[in-house]
Amino acid sequence: MKRHGFPVRVYYEDTDAGGVAYHATYLRWAERARTEAMREAGAPHSDLVTQHGLSFMVRRVEMEYLRPARLDDLLTVMTCALHVRAASAEIRQSFVRDGEALAEAAILLACVRLADGRPGRIPDRWRRALAAELGDELGGPSG
Amino acid sequence: MKRHGFPVRVYYEDTDAGGVAYHATYLRWAERARTEAMREAGAPHSDLVTQHGLSFMVRRVEMEYLRPARLDDLLTVMTCALHVRAASAEIRQSFVRDGEALAEAAILLACVRLADGRPGRIPDRWRRALAAELGDELGGPSG
Amino acid sequence: MKRHGFPVRVYYEDTDAGGVAYHATYLRWAERARTEAMREAGAPHSDLVTQHGLSFMVRRVEMEYLRPARLDDLLTVMTCALHVRAASAEIRQSFVRDGEALAEAAILLACVRLADGRPGRIPDRWRRALAAELGDELGGPSG
Amino acid sequence: MKRHGFPVRVYYEDTDAGGVAYHATYLRWAERARTEAMREAGAPHSDLVTQHGLSFMVRRVEMEYLRPARLDDLLTVMTCALHVRAASAEIRQSFVRDGEALAEAAILLACVRLADGRPGRIPDRWRRALAAELGDELGGPSG
Repeated sequence: MKRHGFPVRVYYEDTDAGGVAYHATYLRWAERARTEAMREAGAPHSDLVTQHGLSFMVRRVEMEYLRPARLDDLLTVMTCALHVRAASAEIRQSFVRDGEALAEAAILLACVRLADGRPGRIPDRWRRALAAELGDELGGPSG
Repeated sequence: MKRHGFPVRVYYEDTDAGGVAYHATYLRWAERARTEAMREAGAPHSDLVTQHGLSFMVRRVEMEYLRPARLDDLLTVMTCALHVRAASAEIRQSFVRDGEALAEAAILLACVRLADGRPGRIPDRWRRALAAELGDELGGPSG
Repeated sequence: MKRHGFPVRVYYEDTDAGGVAYHATYLRWAERARTEAMREAGAPHSDLVTQHGLSFMVRRVEMEYLRPARLDDLLTVMTCALHVRAASAEIRQSFVRDGEALAEAAILLACVRLADGRPGRIPDRWRRALAAELGDELGGPSG
Repeated sequence: MKRHGFPVRVYYEDTDAGGVAYHATYLRWAERARTEAMREAGAPHSDLVTQHGLSFMVRRVEMEYLRPARLDDLLTVMTCALHVRAASAEIRQSFVRDGEALAEAAILLACVRLADGRPGRIPDRWRRALAAELGDELGGPSG
């Protein structure tokens, strides 16, 4: 999920009577983008559920709204990992229109066991998918 | 659930950039109203799930939009049963503002077994709750 | 918008605690598909608003739910026009997974003047876009 | 809006296939609660729009999810003001079930002019409504 970009179009369903995208809509877009980022990195969330009985849950959201998105706008949701720990990962997402960020999100995902809701260790495949991007994001040496 | 009335207020979350309530919002309001109508009739949907392994699923929706609802409007969702069959029920709902219907819905609910998705017979408690209203709606003799 | 196909993926945002796509979600998907169908037919809805002060409003919805859609499913929303009148159009949409229809919708769109909410004549560009598909749908002679 | 409490019930529309309330749903509940808190404090948002051409926009959201809310749960959204500045206010909201917080939110609202999206000074009526709660929250001396 190296600097993964995901396109979203703003439809009426996403807007409100203020004429702009409703603020909760960005969380729905962010979920779509994270899901596709993990899928393309070879670590689909559905496999995490069915093969490991684990799930990523949103534990914390920090969202900054900078400029409104409007009906028919075409945005790109950029997704990258910031930190990966044993049972959680911090994801950074930005919502970009024509090269300009309209909103920025920091999402803390916790890996939990579906059976009891307790923290669960992120399996290697998902760790690698997240870590691949981590190095990239932090610009560390790869050799 | 005899001519059950349920209040809903129109918030930004319910509206779209056209300045009116988004058309899919009415289905969310309708679900809330049906849920509370059944609960007040002593037949909560949650009991149907936990005690019988059954659930009402929406099988068909017919919705007519007559006049737009706007931000801050206070509506009443009127709910009544039209027909009750072995494994399904037809519900009629209207969305009223100041005595004027803004929209009308006919919802066909199927009672299905959660285990296999097959039709399930509506248990007596739910049948009675629905039937109580049916007689009322059809104007049957009350004395 | 000749037999227009639009892909949608089922995300958590679209599902409910029953484990399937929430019934109101299909209306959101349908709006996205209609919007893109008109855009690709050269008659974007946004132009209708800005150039003509008109808008298509949903006047009636008939939705049949046949089989549930589940998390991660990839659906195609097929969109075509059934009737085009002076100030309204009837749209048929189906939600297909692996060649099987999960749901069918008939949507009546009314063309209204934004200034006063009165019916407005559908401009030629939109009429042609809709009509192109109409002939196709009705299987009229093409030669 | 002194320690304003607003009830919300969890319906299917609010949940996801994980069996719990979807994380973006809390933002919708929060908007409802803020709207009613301001209305009850005699400073409805609709008056801000129509009488002053101003609107509160969500500028920043920080949300912490502690325990999942489930279908049919009855929550209370507690709303109070934390800081009130010339053109913005920080709101604190918590989502409580049986005395236990399921989630906590800090929302920064900016007061903006609808005409040009620039910051606008919060009018006295809204300032007083917010400030009434501020003193209470901070426990400062009232005499």
